[in-house]
Amino acid sequence: MKIIIDAMGGDNAPLEIVKGAVLAKEKYDADIVLTGREEEILKALKSMGEASLPAGIEIVNCEEVITMEDDPATAPRRKRNSSMTVGLTMLRKGEADAMVSAGSTGALLTGATLFTKRINGIRRAALAPFVPCKGGNVLIIDCGANVECTPEYLLQFAFMGSFYVKSMLNIEAPRVGLINNGAEECKGTELQKETYKLLAKAHAEGRVNFVGNVEARDVPLGACDVAVCDGFTGNIIIKGFEGIAKFMFGEIKQVLKKNVKTMIGAALVKNDLMSLKKLMDSDEVGGTILLGISKPVIKAHGSSDAKAVCNAVRQAISIVNADIVSQINDNIDYMRIESTEAEA
Amino acid sequence: MKIIIDAMGGDNAPLEIVKGAVLAKEKYDADIVLTGREEEILKALKSMGEASLPAGIEIVNCEEVITMEDDPATAPRRKRNSSMTVGLTMLRKGEADAMVSAGSTGALLTGATLFTKRINGIRRAALAPFVPCKGGNVLIIDCGANVECTPEYLLQFAFMGSFYVKSMLNIEAPRVGLINNGAEECKGTELQKETYKLLAKAHAEGRVNFVGNVEARDVPLGACDVAVCDGFTGNIIIKGFEGIAKFMFGEIKQVLKKNVKTMIGAALVKNDLMSLKKLMDSDEVGGTILLGISKPVIKAHGSSDAKAVCNAVRQAISIVNADIVSQINDNIDYMRIESTEAEA
Repeated sequence: MKIIIDAMGGDNAPLEIVKGAVLAKEKYDADIVLTGREEEILKALKSMGEASLPAGIEIVNCEEVITMEDDPATAPRRKRNSSMTVGLTMLRKGEADAMVSAGSTGALLTGATLFTKRINGIRRAALAPFVPCKGGNVLIIDCGANVECTPEYLLQFAFMGSFYVKSMLNIEAPRVGLINNGAEECKGTELQKETYKLLAKAHAEGRVNFVGNVEARDVPLGACDVAVCDGFTGNIIIKGFEGIAKFMFGEIKQVLKKNVKTMIGAALVKNDLMSLKKLMDSDEVGGTILLGISKPVIKAHGSSDAKAVCNAVRQAISIVNADIVSQINDNIDYMRIESTEAEA
Repeated sequence: MKIIIDAMGGDNAPLEIVKGAVLAKEKYDADIVLTGREEEILKALKSMGEASLPAGIEIVNCEEVITMEDDPATAPRRKRNSSMTVGLTMLRKGEADAMVSAGSTGALLTGATLFTKRINGIRRAALAPFVPCKGGNVLIIDCGANVECTPEYLLQFAFMGSFYVKSMLNIEAPRVGLINNGAEECKGTELQKETYKLLAKAHAEGRVNFVGNVEARDVPLGACDVAVCDGFTGNIIIKGFEGIAKFMFGEIKQVLKKNVKTMIGAALVKNDLMSLKKLMDSDEVGGTILLGISKPVIKAHGSSDAKAVCNAVRQAISIVNADIVSQINDNIDYMRIESTEAEA
C-alpha cells in the first residue's frame, strides 16, 4: 500500500508533516510518498537527525504550495505543480492508494473533485468528520462542502456515511438520522421533507437504517451514528459544538479558580478534566474523510502535529483496507433518485 | 400595569403557574389576570393556603385548554375559549399590557399572530431567547418561528433584536452578527448573501451596529449581542448548545466518579459546577419573547415552576416599561426593503 502525504499543507508544514510521515512509516505497513519542495523536506529530515531518506519514503518534488491565502476554488487548477494538486493527480492515476493533507479544506475539496474525480454517479463529495458523542462517535455528513444541497445529495450522504461508519466503527447497521428542527416527519424545509421520503424508502428496502429526524440536541446525546445534513447546517452544528465546549471549559476554569476549596478540588480532578477537554478538541478527532471521491482523501486538521499526521495515515490505511469506494460503487444504483424511482 | 398569565399552559399548570402569579403579585407592582378554569385555579390557590383570591389578581374563566397534543397551527382558532386564545385576544383589545404563557410554543406563536396581531409592517414574528455566552448573554433571533425566511425578515430580526437587547441589557449599540458558515462576505446561501447587503447598508446608515458574519463557534464565545438567523438555523444552534452542554456535564460526572481522588476533588467543586450547569440550563434562562407582536408576549419554558413564572412576569414588566413595541414602530420605515431601497 502507498499513501501520499502533502508535505507542504498545514500550519506546521513541512517539519511536523515530515515527522508524522517518518512516524507512520515506522508504525504501519505502508509506503509513503511526500509531495512538496524536496529541499525543504530533506532539511526537515536532517533537523530530525535523518541523514538520508528513510526506506519506504519517497519524495515527489513540486515547487508550488497552495496557501490559506489562495482562493480555494481556483488554486488547485492555477497551481498545477503544487504539492496538493500533484498528489491528487497521482492518486487519480493509481500511483498511490490514498492521500492525506493538512492544507486548505476548500482547496482540497476542489482539487479532489477536479483531479482525483468523484465516484461515478456521486453528485457531490462531502466532508464527514467524526464528532464525540455519548457512548462513542457520530459521523456528521456534510460538514461544509456543499452549502446548498438537493434531497438526492443527502440520500447519497446517508449511504456513503453508512458504509464508512460500518467499516470504521464496526457497526453492523449504523443508525442514520436526518438533522431537523423537530422529530415529526413534516418538519424542516422542502429539503428535509423530500429527503425524509427518500430515506424512509431506502429504509423500507433494507438499504439504510434510517431512524428518522434527529434534533440537534440529540446528536451529542448519541441518537444516531450518521447525522445527515446540508453543508451549511453541518457547519453550524460542528462549529457550534466547538464553541460551546470552549465556552464551557473557560467557565469551568473560572469556577475551579474561585477559592481555596475549589482550587484544592481542581488539583485532584484536573488531569481527568483535561482528558475530557482533549476529547472535545477537534485536533484530537483525527482526519476528516472526503466521501464520494474515487480514492480516499483525508483532510487532517490545519494545526496537525506529527502525531495527528500519523493518525491520519492510520485512518487512510483502514479506509483503503475497508474498500469503501467499492461499497459505494456497488450500491450506486440505489443512491440515485432516477433509479430508485424507476424501481418502484 | 396589568399582566395576563395563561394559568393552564405548561407541564406544571395550573398549580405552579398560580403559585408564580401570587409570587409575582407580591414582588412586583403589577396586577395579574389569570386566564383558565376558575374552579381549578381556586383549587390551586386553596392548596397554597389562600382562602380567597389575593388582591390584585383576577381570574377570567375559560373552559378550554390548548394541550401539547393539539395541532399548534389550528388550536388557537379552534379553541377560541381556551386560556391562551382568551388572553391573547384581551391583549389585542388593550385589556392588559403583556402576557406570559408556558403553553405550546407553536400555538402561542400562531395565536399571537392571529389574535394579538403583528406590529404593522413586521413580516414575521420571531422567537428570540437569550443564551448564556462568554461575558454575558446573546440574543438568538429567530429560534424556530420561521423555518423559511427572506432577507427582509432577517433585516427586521436584526432591528427588533437590537431594540430589545439595548433595552433589556443596557447595551448602547448591540453588536449584530449574521450567523453564517464563514466570516467572509461571500459566505452562505442566497439568504445570507442578500441579508449581508441589507445589514451592511443599515450599518452604513447608522441604524444597526452590524459586525458582519459570525460563525457558530463564535456565538458562545461572545462575538455579538444579537445573532441573526432563519428559524431552522436558530433551532439547530440552540438545540445543539443544549445537547452538547448536557453531554459534557454527563461526561464530567463520569470523570468525577472515576476514583477516590477525583471523588474527593468532586466533593470540593460540586456546588460551583452545579451553578454552572444551572447557567447552561434552558429552564433558568427565563422567558423567550415573541418579537414583532403588537403587545409583549412571553413564552415561559414548558417545565416552568413558580419561580420561572415569576421571572417571566418580571421580564414582561421590563419589556412594557422599555416600550419596545414603540421603538419598532418608530423605525418600521427602515426595516422594509421597499422603503430602504426608495431612500437610496
